[in-house]
Amino acid sequence: MSGRTVTAAVIIIGNEILSGRTQDANLAFLAQELGEIGVRLREARVVADEEDAIVEAVNACRARYDHVFTTGGIGPTHDDITSAAIATAFQRAHRRHPEAERRLRAYYPPEKLNEARLKMADMPEGAELIDNPVSVAPGFRIENVYVLPGVPSILQAMFAGLKPRLEGGAPVRSRTVTVLCPEGEIAKPLGEIQSRHPSIEIGSYPFMQQGRFGTSLVFRGTDETAIRAAAEELLTLARERRIEVLQLF
Amino acid sequence: MSGRTVTAAVIIIGNEILSGRTQDANLAFLAQELGEIGVRLREARVVADEEDAIVEAVNACRARYDHVFTTGGIGPTHDDITSAAIATAFQRAHRRHPEAERRLRAYYPPEKLNEARLKMADMPEGAELIDNPVSVAPGFRIENVYVLPGVPSILQAMFAGLKPRLEGGAPVRSRTVTVLCPEGEIAKPLGEIQSRHPSIEIGSYPFMQQGRFGTSLVFRGTDETAIRAAAEELLTLARERRIEVLQLF
Repeated sequence: MSGRTVTAAVIIIGNEILSGRTQDANLAFLAQELGEIGVRLREARVVADEEDAIVEAVNACRARYDHVFTTGGIGPTHDDITSAAIATAFQRAHRRHPEAERRLRAYYPPEKLNEARLKMADMPEGAELIDNPVSVAPGFRIENVYVLPGVPSILQAMFAGLKPRLEGGAPVRSRTVTVLCPEGEIAKPLGEIQSRHPSIEIGSYPFMQQGRFGTSLVFRGTDETAIRAAAEELLTLARERRIEVLQLF
Repeated sequence: MSGRTVTAAVIIIGNEILSGRTQDANLAFLAQELGEIGVRLREARVVADEEDAIVEAVNACRARYDHVFTTGGIGPTHDDITSAAIATAFQRAHRRHPEAERRLRAYYPPEKLNEARLKMADMPEGAELIDNPVSVAPGFRIENVYVLPGVPSILQAMFAGLKPRLEGGAPVRSRTVTVLCPEGEIAKPLGEIQSRHPSIEIGSYPFMQQGRFGTSLVFRGTDETAIRAAAEELLTLARERRIEVLQLF
């Protein structure tokens, strides 16, 4: 843990997300996990399985954020081009990684180990392996870019191994207060509470439940004293205006 | 419908997605809807509720794609800054839109219409309204950028009105064949099928079900003849190798 703000971006690589065939589940997972170790996810991009698109997104994000996580496109088929694209982004050779190859050879019986599967051991020169406890084929890290698979269960298992080694920052805390009131009716005092507590961010999320409008207010940041004070001001406002508080946690 | 390829990007604006608090549902919806009218979603970005981040994403995407859709950040609270940021991106004044104001005044009883709610009528100069049949506050279009809300039910209702007016292209068709076989075992012949049918894209999506590995192959594009031919080649391959075909649609 360091005192400064540690930032991250996620790059989701896959035509299946852009076609609407698959609902991405990795962004929300990574966002929550990163928040726990004090890493602020600042941006996410979804790009197609196309070299130019991957190279551009990786280069834009790795220059700007402390950590970059890519998901998807590291399997054995023709549409898995992430690893080669990342080698291009870093202008490095794309070569068979000896230890990755050793793991694949140890896992697959010889008659099942074909050239397509061995392709999963091809990585940018200098890549450091990220262990895959589920299906062996490793991900990798190169500088500040972490290359992970798209299948959520495998990504989650791999991230669990990675997490303790990531540089984080002060943990991000949040507190949510849900009121039975449209956000437009409390927008002004809410903005005033935000102005009095600039060290945290207050998000306002309207919803409709059983025909009634409500709003969830999320107080978020590293300054727990400010979170508590801002939430208390909102509760005072709710009491004064006789607004029902639905949920408080 | 035009002969050329019509492209789009989606920009999801909201700290709640980047914090992992909310699972985005709008991207998959827009991706599917756009596919139906032959618009290819090429990229999506998730950015924070920060002016610089919104301006940069909007300017990058509007220069590159035919249509750009933003979601989120157009409500009445302090964290709703999308509309002002888009005015900045277009270097236009941010002014009260008379017709938007008229609609809000007609909807809210006078004692409920406060300055925060009227802020929802502030738009970049020259904006054209997008009707909101659910909660009145309109979205807007400016050049090729369509500004929509983040609440999925409202976004969906507004997009339904917009859809018939959007320029589309040849409808994108897809056919999925699911086989009970790990993708690594058919990667080579699958790549050959892809090479023989470059007009379509073949996506390979592995999964594990009841302890067995399977793969969904998605044949996608505007050329139905090629889709059918490529899918037939895969079925022939499955027959020859005695691979079980789970699902075919």
